[in-house]
Amino acid sequence: MRTIDWVDGAVELIDQTLLPGRLEVRRIATVEDLVDAIQTLAVRGAPALGVAGAYGVALAAKQHQGDGLRAAVNLVTNARPTAVNLARGARRAAARLPEGFDAVLAEADALRDEEIAASAAMATRGADLLTELCGAAPRVLTHCNTGALAAVVGGTALGVVAELHRRGTLGPVIASETRPLLQGARLTAWELGRLGVDFRVSVDGAGPFLMARGEVDAVVLGADRICGNGDTVNKVGTYAHALGARRAGIPFVVVAPESTVDVDTATGADVEIEDRAGAEVISGAPAVNPAFDVTPHDLVTAIVTDRRTIRLDRGERV
Amino acid sequence: MRTIDWVDGAVELIDQTLLPGRLEVRRIATVEDLVDAIQTLAVRGAPALGVAGAYGVALAAKQHQGDGLRAAVNLVTNARPTAVNLARGARRAAARLPEGFDAVLAEADALRDEEIAASAAMATRGADLLTELCGAAPRVLTHCNTGALAAVVGGTALGVVAELHRRGTLGPVIASETRPLLQGARLTAWELGRLGVDFRVSVDGAGPFLMARGEVDAVVLGADRICGNGDTVNKVGTYAHALGARRAGIPFVVVAPESTVDVDTATGADVEIEDRAGAEVISGAPAVNPAFDVTPHDLVTAIVTDRRTIRLDRGERV
Repeated sequence: MRTIDWVDGAVELIDQTLLPGRLEVRRIATVEDLVDAIQTLAVRGAPALGVAGAYGVALAAKQHQGDGLRAAVNLVTNARPTAVNLARGARRAAARLPEGFDAVLAEADALRDEEIAASAAMATRGADLLTELCGAAPRVLTHCNTGALAAVVGGTALGVVAELHRRGTLGPVIASETRPLLQGARLTAWELGRLGVDFRVSVDGAGPFLMARGEVDAVVLGADRICGNGDTVNKVGTYAHALGARRAGIPFVVVAPESTVDVDTATGADVEIEDRAGAEVISGAPAVNPAFDVTPHDLVTAIVTDRRTIRLDRGERV
Repeated sequence: MRTIDWVDGAVELIDQTLLPGRLEVRRIATVEDLVDAIQTLAVRGAPALGVAGAYGVALAAKQHQGDGLRAAVNLVTNARPTAVNLARGARRAAARLPEGFDAVLAEADALRDEEIAASAAMATRGADLLTELCGAAPRVLTHCNTGALAAVVGGTALGVVAELHRRGTLGPVIASETRPLLQGARLTAWELGRLGVDFRVSVDGAGPFLMARGEVDAVVLGADRICGNGDTVNKVGTYAHALGARRAGIPFVVVAPESTVDVDTATGADVEIEDRAGAEVISGAPAVNPAFDVTPHDLVTAIVTDRRTIRLDRGERV
């Protein structure tokens, strides 16, 4: 089952707002519906957003021409600002627009297939690295959702966890719940349960303490954008976990495809952090709700992509 | 209005599980009901728990004699393990049991009055310290609830915030929501709203990032137990905020009465951390739910009590 795909002339995606209660595929035939799905997080996760961006341009090419087409492509490209994959996927598909719809769709399909292949490559390389860093059966803490739901199949960091589980060399996993939208408690817990992994959910604030108490061997999570200097932009709460890992002296490993590496953005300070509605946090009172945060590169042990393992702890550079 | 008091032969307390939806005073005439109120967090906060412990012994002295009395006192003393105030308040009142009920109640009333006086003293001293450390109008981040609801009136850290507000020299406040039971989003937001303070709620995982982004001048929060070496045991999530404050180079200030200082417990590693039901975190999946964490003393800038300001950052000792 693919999280997002092009099926019979439209986009089909698992509506992640309904999980874990209901597994429902939503069929999307217009750019407007796709942008809504992106902004409400029915589809989310950097790799999946890249595929959504590319297919969004295919939808635009079916629906519109001329100025209308340009406007529709812009809508898709800018639906959310932080994950580099969305705009990058949209731009890549849009570059084929002069050749017509079939070329755009072929490009989007190619991007989808590359993300599928990237997931497999990251799983292998990441599992190898964790075994090298932690020995057998590492107890892993992960944040947000980086499984199949965040990609097309497989996943990024959670794909590594799944690979360790397949190899029979995974310790118990802690999934932080990931407030405010609970991608960890809703989506990661659902995926880990289906995989048969031994896991527990914790509140986000407990992660650093569980590390200090010696219950975690490595933090493994994804990224929405990896900057040229290695600064990692990811779901809010990531930075606090990185601080906890550093103080506990355990590895902090980022797993993301090359499509999330953005050397054109020099540092985390250059990334627009999406501020989402305060109502996601609390009803009836004001809230500040940055959806992402920046983990400075010096707190990152290694970045695992589909093509490289970058040991920032050894001075290697993105 | 007092959070907890002895009224006409029984304990009356604001049921904090119902806030902010409903402000309801619960009347409690038996040890069993009081223990239930303590364990369900109808009454919570270290100073309030101390008063609850003392009045619990008064209830026990009304209800029981001999072995039954000893058992009832034990029930109160051990209702929750982490905050030192509960057992300490119970033991202090229990020391008067040989003199009879009136002496026990007088001791409990005295403890209540001391906590009221302590709140006022902490507010003044804490506000002076924050002004000294941060200048005028510090932007404060606080965690959990440390207001009147956590004490009898006034509060500890939130009492300092209220005092700065009264002086007209408080910047905007961030209250972290404090998962899983949302003492920040439910109780602190309610208190700050009543005080007329400019505040916003954030998810717990956002705190360190908001500090890194330059939106916070000081972290100010309470404690459930301050150990002999200055290690501070407080609501889970506190330690992550301390790590964030250190990295951002801003003060991390703990405000708690002397009744929370426990020099007989050498370090945080010696404190029993209450593990609460996983269902508080998530329904239908396993969870790990430590209710508190330990902030090592080297991350604490200062501890403000009703009698002292202990500058750990200058090498002063508890």
